[in-house]
Amino acid sequence: MVNERMYGLGAEPSAIRELFAYGMARKAEIGDENVFDFSIGNPSVPAPEAAKQAVLELMEEPPCDLHGYTPAAGAPSVRQTVADHIRRRFGVPASPDQVYLTAGAAAGLAISISAVTKPGDEVIVIAPYFPEYKVWIDTAACACVEVPAHVPDFQLDIDALDAAIGPKTSAVIINSPNNPVGAVYTRENLGAFAALLERKEAELSRKIYVISDEPYREITYGAEVPYVPCVWPRTIVCYSYSKSLSLPGERIGYIYVSDLMDDAREVSTAVAGAGRALGFICAPVLFQRVIERCIDEPSDVASYAANRALLTKGLGALGYEFVEPDGAFYLWVRALEDDAQAFSDRAKAHELLLVPSDSFGVGGWVRVSYCISRETIERSMPAFKALMEEYRS
Amino acid sequence: MVNERMYGLGAEPSAIRELFAYGMARKAEIGDENVFDFSIGNPSVPAPEAAKQAVLELMEEPPCDLHGYTPAAGAPSVRQTVADHIRRRFGVPASPDQVYLTAGAAAGLAISISAVTKPGDEVIVIAPYFPEYKVWIDTAACACVEVPAHVPDFQLDIDALDAAIGPKTSAVIINSPNNPVGAVYTRENLGAFAALLERKEAELSRKIYVISDEPYREITYGAEVPYVPCVWPRTIVCYSYSKSLSLPGERIGYIYVSDLMDDAREVSTAVAGAGRALGFICAPVLFQRVIERCIDEPSDVASYAANRALLTKGLGALGYEFVEPDGAFYLWVRALEDDAQAFSDRAKAHELLLVPSDSFGVGGWVRVSYCISRETIERSMPAFKALMEEYRS
Repeated sequence: MVNERMYGLGAEPSAIRELFAYGMARKAEIGDENVFDFSIGNPSVPAPEAAKQAVLELMEEPPCDLHGYTPAAGAPSVRQTVADHIRRRFGVPASPDQVYLTAGAAAGLAISISAVTKPGDEVIVIAPYFPEYKVWIDTAACACVEVPAHVPDFQLDIDALDAAIGPKTSAVIINSPNNPVGAVYTRENLGAFAALLERKEAELSRKIYVISDEPYREITYGAEVPYVPCVWPRTIVCYSYSKSLSLPGERIGYIYVSDLMDDAREVSTAVAGAGRALGFICAPVLFQRVIERCIDEPSDVASYAANRALLTKGLGALGYEFVEPDGAFYLWVRALEDDAQAFSDRAKAHELLLVPSDSFGVGGWVRVSYCISRETIERSMPAFKALMEEYRS
Repeated sequence: MVNERMYGLGAEPSAIRELFAYGMARKAEIGDENVFDFSIGNPSVPAPEAAKQAVLELMEEPPCDLHGYTPAAGAPSVRQTVADHIRRRFGVPASPDQVYLTAGAAAGLAISISAVTKPGDEVIVIAPYFPEYKVWIDTAACACVEVPAHVPDFQLDIDALDAAIGPKTSAVIINSPNNPVGAVYTRENLGAFAALLERKEAELSRKIYVISDEPYREITYGAEVPYVPCVWPRTIVCYSYSKSLSLPGERIGYIYVSDLMDDAREVSTAVAGAGRALGFICAPVLFQRVIERCIDEPSDVASYAANRALLTKGLGALGYEFVEPDGAFYLWVRALEDDAQAFSDRAKAHELLLVPSDSFGVGGWVRVSYCISRETIERSMPAFKALMEEYRS
């Protein structure tokens, strides 16, 4: 008598979570140092000292004020700080009314999708894509339409999007820097995308929202990350401090409904409604205040950059094929056989935990998370070598 | 093009939130001390010192471990601690697998409702009821069936429930100690309810879940609060530390799917799935660990008890009719005219902010939250007096 869909989602946890759980058990069995766990995107860089100082200082405030409810959209001062930051940094006229603090980007995405779709609509995702997108699209009773990224650069494939956007399309979810590929969409690519959307809106007499999932915005290796609302006004940004400030478990981020869209107020009102509908009351308040104080804190990208160099150099020398990542902390590596799951299973025998690409909506690849210790990457190289030799022999 | 339901929910915030916002603006205008704000259930008792100490100690732990993701159901050690607590305190065989940590009771309720219903089912609520129940029932595409509480004691009305439970009923949401009335369901009343459910399950060949919303469990004035899973095995407890530890904004609580029900594993699996579907990743991790350390911390009920005495004595002397509360921190007062909204509006003219009963599903009453300072209650008495005189003249 339980809900079948919910039972199914609970019974089949995501491939990432499953491999992560396997890794925990395996480490307990044979020792942490003997498992090369590339499964999960849990930041390996510590949260900045400023975040700790913020918590310690805030804990001196009167507890009733500190821990009390805020309005559903967040504390007014925090929304103002976030809006000021967006305005200062990206040159868009961000107002605090258009900022809605969320329990991370996941909440932001689930809320945004439900806010701008009606049941039966279509939401486009770019494959490979973060698997939970499909779950939240299903929750909104919409169809998830997978459009492959352009190969080999994994930019948006404008022609494929042209073919996919139709009379039921309500939104396109994009994610740059990208999980799992590490691609960053160029200004030129986004410009072409915006031109397509403008044409499609006119042709279809329909609004098409871009939901821009941006938890990796700060994790880049030199590439420019254009601000999507500057390119396409009908953009909803879902931001998270999970990666930039290494606070993934604290669940803090925001939705910014671009002031530049002609229906900005309607969309932010629907966002507030969707938050209620999905059971959110307010974003965790202590960390609302932490991000207020840490809004200009730089992300520590150096150790991810070092890991990236180490891994790409090592796997390149061993003959692996991969996408050179411009951002995020994932390496997208070609599996050594067509069946990614089978390849992941064979890697497991070498204690290498690599997420098969199937759950990202494409076959034939694995995702290698390099937000781990440098030593693990170094010590994993013989295992990667043995795996390659196994396939070559 | 935005979702109409979500827009509607965003455009019409709850009456409670609306009055709260009015109060904030009014206080800015005429001074805090001149507004008697009885609108919201924000605890006025500070969080215990132990919670602060827990935060300060935890902040000394390595940040990557401290702030990292936990499994979706929560950190294993915290789930174990909660299960141990339930077992020790209530004598039920609680296992950690049946505990799912949530971002407060709101998340717990939204998740639980979606887990045990299918679209088109009916969920029963006891009027007057917390208005967001209806929102979350709507999200699960179910019908909200209002069954009035038994008057004048506001216990469960067994005959009315007998008439209401039918072939589409999936769940009954109960809330004891009750918001807004302050009633605590007696063991006898709950026993009769369980006997009814047993008969109905047999008659209808259908499982009927009780979703027990328990944020006020610790806020009582001498009444026994029977543990619902001991009375009816098919119970899902939605607990929150918002009121018991005065941490409402931190969003921390749990779902406990009773081990005593025959489908315990199916239900907890569906709960995990519903958490995913609604966009929850894990409960905020710092406060997961805080409640682990504060699990046996007693709630400070003394000041609510003093407020209760002061308010009931004062309003009683003025001739107001109300329900003597056994728990929570709300007084349910008969409006002085049939139209509760009109009464609330006239009270506003005396700077008294009282929530009209309409949004709780019944007419003719107001909810008076007494989780406020003693001084505010004392200073509000002339206003209550003037309001009464206005109606008598």
